[in-house]
Amino acid sequence: MKFEQTHPKAVVLVSGGLDSLTCLAIAQKEGYDVFPISFDYGQKHRAELIAAENIARHYQVPHKIIDLKDLGRMGGSALTDQNIHAKDYDASKAIPNTYVPARNIVFLSIALGYAEIIQAEAIYLGINCIDYSHYPDCRPEFVQAFSQVIQTGTKAGVEGQSIQLKTPLLYLSKEEIISVGLNLQVDYSMSVSCYRANDQGEACGTCDSCTFRKQGFSSLHIPDPTRYIPS
Amino acid sequence: MKFEQTHPKAVVLVSGGLDSLTCLAIAQKEGYDVFPISFDYGQKHRAELIAAENIARHYQVPHKIIDLKDLGRMGGSALTDQNIHAKDYDASKAIPNTYVPARNIVFLSIALGYAEIIQAEAIYLGINCIDYSHYPDCRPEFVQAFSQVIQTGTKAGVEGQSIQLKTPLLYLSKEEIISVGLNLQVDYSMSVSCYRANDQGEACGTCDSCTFRKQGFSSLHIPDPTRYIPS
Repeated sequence: MKFEQTHPKAVVLVSGGLDSLTCLAIAQKEGYDVFPISFDYGQKHRAELIAAENIARHYQVPHKIIDLKDLGRMGGSALTDQNIHAKDYDASKAIPNTYVPARNIVFLSIALGYAEIIQAEAIYLGINCIDYSHYPDCRPEFVQAFSQVIQTGTKAGVEGQSIQLKTPLLYLSKEEIISVGLNLQVDYSMSVSCYRANDQGEACGTCDSCTFRKQGFSSLHIPDPTRYIPS
Repeated sequence: MKFEQTHPKAVVLVSGGLDSLTCLAIAQKEGYDVFPISFDYGQKHRAELIAAENIARHYQVPHKIIDLKDLGRMGGSALTDQNIHAKDYDASKAIPNTYVPARNIVFLSIALGYAEIIQAEAIYLGINCIDYSHYPDCRPEFVQAFSQVIQTGTKAGVEGQSIQLKTPLLYLSKEEIISVGLNLQVDYSMSVSCYRANDQGEACGTCDSCTFRKQGFSSLHIPDPTRYIPS
């Protein structure tokens, strides 16, 4: 007689970038069967969705891409509006124009619906409040507030089946995130972080996201596998 | 010289049902320029979306319908899954199979993104915890938790431009809701509440939603303008 071992399930938000790829590897390491979910919100940097698909294929896990193009059509962000351009990194503490109104809230809500349906016990979100663009929905206050929404606003929460919102990268520097990932054999060449990546997944090297990623690899003195747009 | 009077904006979640129609009328009465938003989440009772369109046309306000069919495709609810049937009302306090996992959370999140983009000051949600189907996302605890998400998770919240989540029907009975609406000249024949409405917008008369609506009109001793499916 054979025993089939069952693992708890976790929904992992996978953008295709470095952080969410690391998060997926952590979730798997922590014993979950992972269910990555990505969102087509009309982002101009389509390469990240292709990266997300490649990541799911690499880990041989079922991938869900949710059509949210109507979110992008509302505009209001350099990531979705053809007339607004993502700026170079400038070390400002202001929220940059790459902020997409309520993006993580929308993504988490849908991930939460998915988690309830497949009876997942956790949702992994690779947000970080150290090397980041000062987005409000990447901060601990937000994580706490959304956890309360899970508790009060879902059948799972009310009936005492907890769905935990896990943010293992929240307080890590980019260097530490990469270091954790490398220990889990993450291949970062699969991921695309750049806000202005071209369709081949090549990165600009100067936007917020590229800057943090570049600094991370540089601080660790390890080769940066990012493919940059030839200058 | 003419002065153009400007009103603050409010996003109103409009399902096409009695409650959200009343909510729209209240928002307008409270001095807002209203921006109704509806969601095509693959609901089987498509008549409610047509009702929502008719309501927006009646009030001559711009209507946004967001494509969220991928939410419905996940299944998990009698409102979206062809293989699960919405039951008749049975006065149970259990959460019925018409619960759509995380539905109001998803809807509110997208309404919140829209509110940030158009710089609305309020979001109106016609939820009610008196004559209702015991959905967790229709209770005051949830409203409080989501308000905290607005505060902590958005640029508007962090920068001190408050977007208020308003739920004027929360503690009203169905009878009281109808009474408020009638004082605002609401024409309830435009709305469709039934979970099993046919494509002509005719109602079953026996699901949870029909039962509460019917009782509301009956308690007020006024004619019920609902069109029922001929038996």
